[in-house]
Amino acid sequence: MPEFRWDPITGRSVIIAAGRSKRPRLHGAGNGQARGEPCPFCPGNEALTPPEIWALREHHSAADKPGWTVRVVPNKYPALEDHGALTVKRDSFYESLNGLGIHEVIIESPDHEINMGALNIDQCADILRAYRARMRAVGDDPRWRYLLLYKNQGERAGATLEHVHSQLIVLPIVPQSAADELTSAKKHYDSTGHCIFCEIVQREVERGERLVSQSDKFIAFCPFAPRFSYEAWILPKNHVAAFEQSTDEDIAALAQFVRDFISRLNRALDRPPFNYVIYSKPPHQSTTRYYHWRIEILPQIARAAGFEWGSGMYMNSVAPEEAARLLRDAAL
Amino acid sequence: MPEFRWDPITGRSVIIAAGRSKRPRLHGAGNGQARGEPCPFCPGNEALTPPEIWALREHHSAADKPGWTVRVVPNKYPALEDHGALTVKRDSFYESLNGLGIHEVIIESPDHEINMGALNIDQCADILRAYRARMRAVGDDPRWRYLLLYKNQGERAGATLEHVHSQLIVLPIVPQSAADELTSAKKHYDSTGHCIFCEIVQREVERGERLVSQSDKFIAFCPFAPRFSYEAWILPKNHVAAFEQSTDEDIAALAQFVRDFISRLNRALDRPPFNYVIYSKPPHQSTTRYYHWRIEILPQIARAAGFEWGSGMYMNSVAPEEAARLLRDAAL
Repeated sequence: MPEFRWDPITGRSVIIAAGRSKRPRLHGAGNGQARGEPCPFCPGNEALTPPEIWALREHHSAADKPGWTVRVVPNKYPALEDHGALTVKRDSFYESLNGLGIHEVIIESPDHEINMGALNIDQCADILRAYRARMRAVGDDPRWRYLLLYKNQGERAGATLEHVHSQLIVLPIVPQSAADELTSAKKHYDSTGHCIFCEIVQREVERGERLVSQSDKFIAFCPFAPRFSYEAWILPKNHVAAFEQSTDEDIAALAQFVRDFISRLNRALDRPPFNYVIYSKPPHQSTTRYYHWRIEILPQIARAAGFEWGSGMYMNSVAPEEAARLLRDAAL
Repeated sequence: MPEFRWDPITGRSVIIAAGRSKRPRLHGAGNGQARGEPCPFCPGNEALTPPEIWALREHHSAADKPGWTVRVVPNKYPALEDHGALTVKRDSFYESLNGLGIHEVIIESPDHEINMGALNIDQCADILRAYRARMRAVGDDPRWRYLLLYKNQGERAGATLEHVHSQLIVLPIVPQSAADELTSAKKHYDSTGHCIFCEIVQREVERGERLVSQSDKFIAFCPFAPRFSYEAWILPKNHVAAFEQSTDEDIAALAQFVRDFISRLNRALDRPPFNYVIYSKPPHQSTTRYYHWRIEILPQIARAAGFEWGSGMYMNSVAPEEAARLLRDAAL
């Protein structure tokens, strides 16, 4: 069983998940399917994954058979497992918690595409619908306190399988950095009456120097203090606390907007490896007025190294104003 | 001029250093000198680096000429620069500070070795003497609040040049994670009268399950909640707050101890890429009684990815008890 552990000095939390060391490795550099092995995410190979949890399927097609456009399965090498009750172990120094949680994989296309930029807008909308459906479903369970939806695209961004996919991790605790962010947002709201994210969106639209693109509903900009070169954030312009609250209309518009952003990234930087993360209001929290969901897109061009691990700070060799200019100019 | 910037929501700090994007890149995967270019760290190529700041040299050998065993130069592509006065820029949302600081490179051998494990113990002692000399020298300047000495070994660990070297970053601010660690250590000291690091050392020696090796003066163990697979910490057994306080005798013993640890790592994991970081009492702080210096050795086998960037938590697929067993068994 995996385990959450906390460092007694720094308070930093880790998940110790010994089962994950069995997962496949990409050979060599760059994107490449583990040699000689069939892709477990391709249609026809459904038996290579655990049974599906959710899928968008052709009418009358059977579970765990071809006929799907997006398919959600448990991670075969989960970081967390959903059995048993939460049990804290604690002595005078060390504290741990059994690794209760959920770890799902969203297989984002029946085609063996390796880049989200290759998918059409309808497919992107289906992917976002899958995210919404899974986040809504797990968010109903009172045991879960935090949902993290993320993508690792490319070997340098941590992908171990190249077929387009994302992952959903469901936690019984709120990570410290999320708790700090919520506290900070609440403090701003309590002292000003405004959502800090709404104010930042307004500011970035007005100034424009870090703006990448905008539509009626969404904005993409490079944040003032980005951890990574060409990092960008996508937010809804109107105040919405949780991604799961998105309407069908929002999803359709977001698919178009995200797809446009990924195309810019691919054109500007020759299909860089990247991560993205959806930050959404944690379930069962009354943070609706001061939290505001967003997607962070985190290209992995340089590497975090000794300085970053040692200081918790980040070195970024591209100013966000410069990154935004490049991404603005990379419009189709 | 580089710039420190803070994210208005998370408080996270970054260094925006546009000049660093000009630095060399390693081509391909794994360790490899940038093709076709002379190594700027090899003897005879001293003119390819900025003029040296410090060196261990043969008697009568001239600065910036061969004859050195360890050589310290300014980073040619510095993350921070030492000119001007600290100037805060702040508006209703965004805060920044000009990137005042020092960024040095410690060239650790005249031989073009790519792995610290290839160096003999005398050379390792010379390297540690160089660290001590530079940390003492910059620590005397009242402008500097934090010193971070780190190594990136191997391309996957962020090295852009393969010739063995480390780096020293000198900051006019204390990074948040260091401040948090100091606060936590002080709290423990205030409530118990003991240094938390001393207590952890004692605990790990007693239990032994995470112990890798020990000598009269030092201990190496895998910490209870490691961020990385096979992460290990080296600490002095006696209470010493700052690495710079090390005596010549300490340095000689530490060289032998670190060299032994690196050999174990190389044998157990086939010369993995790794980072190490020296955490030492910040200069000009009266933290002598509750802080305790350490080296963190951080092998880079898996990659931090979407989950880590999004949650601030780490997934580790090797329990430290298992990692310690492997490293214990890898003794010569």
